[in-house]
Amino acid sequence: MAEINHQVGIKTSPEKIYALLTTDSGLAQWWTNDISGAGDVGSIIEFRFNGGGPDFLVTKLMPNKRVEWQHSGVMPEAWIGTEIKFELTVQDQQTFVRFTHTNWKEPSDFMAHCSTKWAVFLLSLKEALETGTGKPFPNDIHIDHS
Amino acid sequence: MAEINHQVGIKTSPEKIYALLTTDSGLAQWWTNDISGAGDVGSIIEFRFNGGGPDFLVTKLMPNKRVEWQHSGVMPEAWIGTEIKFELTVQDQQTFVRFTHTNWKEPSDFMAHCSTKWAVFLLSLKEALETGTGKPFPNDIHIDHS
Repeated sequence: MAEINHQVGIKTSPEKIYALLTTDSGLAQWWTNDISGAGDVGSIIEFRFNGGGPDFLVTKLMPNKRVEWQHSGVMPEAWIGTEIKFELTVQDQQTFVRFTHTNWKEPSDFMAHCSTKWAVFLLSLKEALETGTGKPFPNDIHIDHS
Repeated sequence: MAEINHQVGIKTSPEKIYALLTTDSGLAQWWTNDISGAGDVGSIIEFRFNGGGPDFLVTKLMPNKRVEWQHSGVMPEAWIGTEIKFELTVQDQQTFVRFTHTNWKEPSDFMAHCSTKWAVFLLSLKEALETGTGKPFPNDIHIDHS
């Protein structure tokens, strides 16, 4: 099994980060502007990019500390069976977001692409909270010309 | 063992990317402005950030296709034994850079930090080639407030 790991430190409270990980309006500030379904454990969040995109089942919520999702549905195919975790830890003047996207079958080129893209979106989350303006799709930073 | 994977697509030739991976002046355009020692297989490149930083032994060079380094020296400690590979592949109007930093003992928070930071530097490499201006240290994008 392969996995993606990232960490960013954001100058804000865990409460404010948690809101951007657990609500449609919050998620729309940094990942994609087309989101619906965010809610309690058991809800399925639909993230859309030009109409298509992944669904995630919310599997664990520890307020201001931890958010876990399990991939649901059939696309992208390589994401089937994968899980995403966000862990929040306060340290001095910042809150660290420790991100993992685990359970990939193999470290494919597509996984490598997603790894770089996750870094871009986590920096978008950081910007959204520190400057008020993130870069969610379709205003995200492009990492290739495909 | 744990590893970091990334991929970016750059609108340039593999020759131009290869030059930025194998010369002091090229590496200084995107990773850190303080670099010495880049050369043929067997040379040791010293990357410095405010005086300290890692050394890498150049272990494999396939012109315009592949660059491999093995960590050398004692810092950072978690990098001891790790290896870095850049593989270049042309596809249509772009060249993909497939990056791996392998052989980590564990997927620690520090590895997660480095994963995000590598994404930042690979985007700096992309910018250096596409716009003429990368963001090498000390002008790199900060991913935390440490």
